[in-house]
Amino acid sequence: MGKLHHIIEAQQFDRKFLEEELFPLAREMEEVAKKGGTPCLSGKRMITLFYEPSTRTRASFEMAIDLLGGKVVFSTENARQFSSAAKGETLEDTIKILNGYYPDVIVLRYDEEGGAKRAATVSKVPIINAGDGTGQHPTQALLDLYTIQKEIGRVSDTSIAMVGDLTRGRTVRSLSYLYTKFPGVKIYFISPEATKMRDDIKDYLKEKGVGFEEGNDLRKVASRVDVIYQTRTQKERGGLLEKDNEKESFCVVNQEILNLMKKDAIILHPLPHVEEIAPEVDGDKRATYFRQAENGLYVRMALLKMILS
Amino acid sequence: MGKLHHIIEAQQFDRKFLEEELFPLAREMEEVAKKGGTPCLSGKRMITLFYEPSTRTRASFEMAIDLLGGKVVFSTENARQFSSAAKGETLEDTIKILNGYYPDVIVLRYDEEGGAKRAATVSKVPIINAGDGTGQHPTQALLDLYTIQKEIGRVSDTSIAMVGDLTRGRTVRSLSYLYTKFPGVKIYFISPEATKMRDDIKDYLKEKGVGFEEGNDLRKVASRVDVIYQTRTQKERGGLLEKDNEKESFCVVNQEILNLMKKDAIILHPLPHVEEIAPEVDGDKRATYFRQAENGLYVRMALLKMILS
Amino acid sequence: MGKLHHIIEAQQFDRKFLEEELFPLAREMEEVAKKGGTPCLSGKRMITLFYEPSTRTRASFEMAIDLLGGKVVFSTENARQFSSAAKGETLEDTIKILNGYYPDVIVLRYDEEGGAKRAATVSKVPIINAGDGTGQHPTQALLDLYTIQKEIGRVSDTSIAMVGDLTRGRTVRSLSYLYTKFPGVKIYFISPEATKMRDDIKDYLKEKGVGFEEGNDLRKVASRVDVIYQTRTQKERGGLLEKDNEKESFCVVNQEILNLMKKDAIILHPLPHVEEIAPEVDGDKRATYFRQAENGLYVRMALLKMILS
Repeated sequence: MGKLHHIIEAQQFDRKFLEEELFPLAREMEEVAKKGGTPCLSGKRMITLFYEPSTRTRASFEMAIDLLGGKVVFSTENARQFSSAAKGETLEDTIKILNGYYPDVIVLRYDEEGGAKRAATVSKVPIINAGDGTGQHPTQALLDLYTIQKEIGRVSDTSIAMVGDLTRGRTVRSLSYLYTKFPGVKIYFISPEATKMRDDIKDYLKEKGVGFEEGNDLRKVASRVDVIYQTRTQKERGGLLEKDNEKESFCVVNQEILNLMKKDAIILHPLPHVEEIAPEVDGDKRATYFRQAENGLYVRMALLKMILS
Repeated sequence: MGKLHHIIEAQQFDRKFLEEELFPLAREMEEVAKKGGTPCLSGKRMITLFYEPSTRTRASFEMAIDLLGGKVVFSTENARQFSSAAKGETLEDTIKILNGYYPDVIVLRYDEEGGAKRAATVSKVPIINAGDGTGQHPTQALLDLYTIQKEIGRVSDTSIAMVGDLTRGRTVRSLSYLYTKFPGVKIYFISPEATKMRDDIKDYLKEKGVGFEEGNDLRKVASRVDVIYQTRTQKERGGLLEKDNEKESFCVVNQEILNLMKKDAIILHPLPHVEEIAPEVDGDKRATYFRQAENGLYVRMALLKMILS
Repeated sequence: MGKLHHIIEAQQFDRKFLEEELFPLAREMEEVAKKGGTPCLSGKRMITLFYEPSTRTRASFEMAIDLLGGKVVFSTENARQFSSAAKGETLEDTIKILNGYYPDVIVLRYDEEGGAKRAATVSKVPIINAGDGTGQHPTQALLDLYTIQKEIGRVSDTSIAMVGDLTRGRTVRSLSYLYTKFPGVKIYFISPEATKMRDDIKDYLKEKGVGFEEGNDLRKVASRVDVIYQTRTQKERGGLLEKDNEKESFCVVNQEILNLMKKDAIILHPLPHVEEIAPEVDGDKRATYFRQAENGLYVRMALLKMILS
């Protein structure tokens, strides 16, 4: 890969880049953060343009650029409601105008699929997709993958159960794309009937020869997988998650699942988590989601460093 | 003029200041920005206090102070809804309190006419009016004028058509005040009957001896003017723009207008633009509005430098 | 007291700390601010996490850290509406995640009593309570006390009338706790029947042997007290303030009260003030509330310096 510019979708990264460039640099960034940061991106200007709220993602990007010596020069957390967008301005025009104000990178959270790609077509400066509606959330997928690599020791030859709202869950979509880069992997899509993984991803997996199975009962696969990736019931993503009859589907992580899981397996979750993970799980050492969130800082620092230096 | 302090309304500037101080400094600021900025306002503290949203205006001020080495020390983008104002605090009290926190300048966007003037009466530090309801938006008017000067080569002896919602359009009101400073100018106010320019401006123009005409069909003057200044249909400014029968008024910029316009005329718009400019216009070299937005950065840098250094 | 870490409630401070450490340092901070600040907290990172709006409190904290050379690395002004909280995330989880991003201090405004204490139980970095619902607002109480000390010359042996909505008023609750640290004080709780001081505070005062009286007519005590602490009619705190028949209660500060007051008494108010203080009072030299707001900057600078250096 050449020098990293826009970050739009998970598919753009290859295994070599991930294993030989991103992961080692993220590990290095952890050391840098622990030592209080580095001035390596001194003078670099970041805009965070969020059309829908995300405390965690915005905070991790803004604190990442600070730890690298750069600056947030403009930040808005609900551009849809509070900006020119409310006056009917297109995303493309907003990006063109912000380009005229000398930023070095624009971190964009958009509320419709394809937003980041549209922004990139008109932007001279790099666009980082921080989530675009039901589309992708590639930096989340990268931090998910980095967490698996760090905790399990590898991504190749691992099996993962993706659980819950797979229809609207951006993170599992992006992660599925990334999983195709690694040999020997197996994916279990575990969801109620109403929120199954969409065909585009399944077709992509078939095309790439990645094995996957679908089911609606996490208990049936919990003992077999290295990773359980639980997702959130996303009320705000449009439409309520229709609950199946309990006899038919089982998509919660609780003590019963903990009892079934391998000793060295891990539980991931993009957070925030609500009732889809039972309170007793938080105390289990396999509950990896808070370390996963922290890894988000290191991965974003690594990406910013690659893009801006 | 003495040292610049508050920026409240377009009328406060004279032609000498504009042509001999502001415009040359804005041009210089463009060079400064292209070279990555200057630390000349190092340590200077700016507050952006916005009572209604404006991504573009807030971004350009915040990025301007950064390019000059200063800092945004407090920023709020919807003070009306999210602040003490919601608890009934007067603007004057808010300004008095913020003065006690050692800012060097307060950039104020207020949602009622006269807000900046009221703020200035109680503020020890300079107030910059970044728009006050249906009142003025003087820095927009200055960047508009700077754009005309830069693109046409002069403001004197130019003719301009101001088009659209002239009743509520802050920018055309402020720009009209500024136009009176220059000899040989001619203004055409082109609008539907429901949104004609208000009498206060027309009386002011008469008093200053500036020629103007009113009409409702842009086609009739498009071939004659140096500048077409299109405005936005401002739904959020209160009341819907009542549309005239199409036979009666023509206030859109489209291919028909492009065909009529002089080759070296320019089209300005305060942005965001929606249906009042047809999509085909964006690609025409006379569509100057994105460069105009960029000039906003340079003009605001120049003003901040004059006020704070 | 050992080194200051979390600031959760007014009770945690003793008189020695207040008189020998905090007040002298706040006085020193005033000099520092007047000289343009100090780089003593260079590199320190502050998060302002506000679940409900407060222009003044947020501004004073953010400008305080800047004057000390530190930085705001992440700021949100309505976390309840615009963040993961809207997706059901607990405060504890949000705090845990933000801890993973290397802040040095988190300033928290929460919308439910007990929020700061809950945050402190899971946070490795110091939490500063910037108000938690109807609970406490300890830095406000500290600045109130500092203002009394500075203006009257002492806190011991002073009498104070706390007036208005004493049921929901966070500031008078916290200030009452602090008053128990000083000998010879007397408190008058003056309120309509519907918004009397709650029993927990009155029990605490009895336990500590602090004299207090309750009443509903400020005129009866105005000539006797050194401090009138007026509070705001807090519509947004839940429930409208039920107004008593005017014959029965008198809880406004107006010319009649000014005429009764001692010449060197002071009027405090946490601001914003609305109709509970008549307009004519603002011009009286005993109206101390704008200096009180300014003192907030110095007290917060002092607290940040103690916590972070």
